[in-house]
Amino acid sequence: MHSIEHYRNEFISYLESRTITKEPKNLYAPITYILELGGKRLRPVLVLMAAEVFGTDYEKAMDAALAIEVFHNFSLVHDDIMDAAPLRRGKATVHEKWDINTGILSGDAMLINAYQLFENYEGETFRNLAKLFSKTALEVCEGQQYDVDFETRDDVSETEYLKMIEYKTAVLVAAALKMGGIVAGASLEDQNSIYEFGRNLGIAFQLQDDYLDAFGDPESFGKQVGGDIIENKKTFLYLKALENGSQLQQKELSHLFSIQPKDPADKITTIKNLFVETGSAALTQREIEAFTNKAFAVLEGLQLTEEKKDLLQLFGENLMRRKV
Amino acid sequence: MHSIEHYRNEFISYLESRTITKEPKNLYAPITYILELGGKRLRPVLVLMAAEVFGTDYEKAMDAALAIEVFHNFSLVHDDIMDAAPLRRGKATVHEKWDINTGILSGDAMLINAYQLFENYEGETFRNLAKLFSKTALEVCEGQQYDVDFETRDDVSETEYLKMIEYKTAVLVAAALKMGGIVAGASLEDQNSIYEFGRNLGIAFQLQDDYLDAFGDPESFGKQVGGDIIENKKTFLYLKALENGSQLQQKELSHLFSIQPKDPADKITTIKNLFVETGSAALTQREIEAFTNKAFAVLEGLQLTEEKKDLLQLFGENLMRRKV
Repeated sequence: MHSIEHYRNEFISYLESRTITKEPKNLYAPITYILELGGKRLRPVLVLMAAEVFGTDYEKAMDAALAIEVFHNFSLVHDDIMDAAPLRRGKATVHEKWDINTGILSGDAMLINAYQLFENYEGETFRNLAKLFSKTALEVCEGQQYDVDFETRDDVSETEYLKMIEYKTAVLVAAALKMGGIVAGASLEDQNSIYEFGRNLGIAFQLQDDYLDAFGDPESFGKQVGGDIIENKKTFLYLKALENGSQLQQKELSHLFSIQPKDPADKITTIKNLFVETGSAALTQREIEAFTNKAFAVLEGLQLTEEKKDLLQLFGENLMRRKV
Repeated sequence: MHSIEHYRNEFISYLESRTITKEPKNLYAPITYILELGGKRLRPVLVLMAAEVFGTDYEKAMDAALAIEVFHNFSLVHDDIMDAAPLRRGKATVHEKWDINTGILSGDAMLINAYQLFENYEGETFRNLAKLFSKTALEVCEGQQYDVDFETRDDVSETEYLKMIEYKTAVLVAAALKMGGIVAGASLEDQNSIYEFGRNLGIAFQLQDDYLDAFGDPESFGKQVGGDIIENKKTFLYLKALENGSQLQQKELSHLFSIQPKDPADKITTIKNLFVETGSAALTQREIEAFTNKAFAVLEGLQLTEEKKDLLQLFGENLMRRKV
């Protein structure tokens, strides 16, 4: 087995060897740009790691890993248009650097490119990868649509919220792991177990993202702390606080989530206090722990050596400590 | 063999039986809306017809036909955003009826849906359909990009223009026919011949579209005659006129293609005269005829009974007479 660092470096080399700018330049240059902006490359690393865990050279999983990364970046390009986001990883988003039309069309080409990468696999492997990919990609679209819908709804339930983050984030993590399993020819049972591991870990990761957005260390979080609060984003913390707060706390929370003060510092402090006082902060941490533990429990059922299970567990632990 | 009308009616029934609105509604309702707006359903009819020509029940090609139609409508939804078009088939475009974000995301879901429809085919049929589809879909994106790029260029060559319309329009017609062949298990040689038939016919059709936009009968053309001229669109007629006109004619043409008068009637008349006087109108008609004849010549090489070749030829003739 290799280290995360090794998988990442190998993946980046492969990515760079594969990105040549073809004609028409205005279609392909934005694709190279977004793919080379960086990022943690978590999803492709998971594909490679899973392939090796299930007993195949990770090199064989390179094209599946690249497909997942290309798809992930496709969704970023289209999401950034929808969110009117000017920056991605500290650089101009595609629609900012070029224009919205370029973002739409280059994104479309990326989605097709991702499918084409599976053509490097034969027979049932090709079929299973493409089928899992389509199912997952559609769920990601549905998750994005739920996220958009929730912005204008004030009756979102906890179940609905969890489904949204599952679709928008977790299923791609799960699919990345399962793709490694497909390439390696793992048993269906193991494929499903590693998928469940990824799905639960992905949900835990996204809930933690909600939590750290309010309570994270500004030095290490990487995004602006309080960003969700400034944008009045109804995260898990907000839903739990609204559910468990007193009538007065509910009223204060609803009011604060309807305003956008120029200097948001006071609003952020008050809301963070409300998250703590209503018990929401603690409940959210408990939920994160529950999904993380569920992920690790699934690992136990896998037909793997302890050493390999430990590697997956270590990856999960590092991910949840944001050290990956 | 069945009639075009029969294939079309059967396809529409199938389409209607397959469009159920799922959750989230804001993602799936626009898909049902655009798919049920109508249109001539030429591409899916070609899939069904080709399947039967090559000896298979056309019913077996229904999902491939639906995939082609879903993809075609995906490209309309995204193109209409890029062109800021308010109307499609006389009704509001998706981004007008909902909004741009809905158009982007529902379009993405349609592209994925198209791929999923191939899952109804086994083994190599699935692989060959998906592979041809990806190649074609990417070419359609490239064609759209060339079309956008040409708007701001004044040195577009005839070769470049022909490549643009080939990619933007003809390859999908060609792929529709080849998909019928794939489903029917036709020989590779026949698959390639029917593709070439479709490609040449598609180019002829698009050139004729350019021609009719200026010289068509307002009663039967279906679109506003002179629309391209009003929009200063550099069609084949324009490129040929610029190439063959005198210096004075070139200057007049370039000038007229840089202005947008409120009442375009005079501009349209002058430009149509220039198209005739420079010989461009006649040259364009000759080019249409050349591509149509090339398409019919390819038909000759197909391993089919004369009856079946005649059916394909009749389809081509009706298409070029705009009677399909």
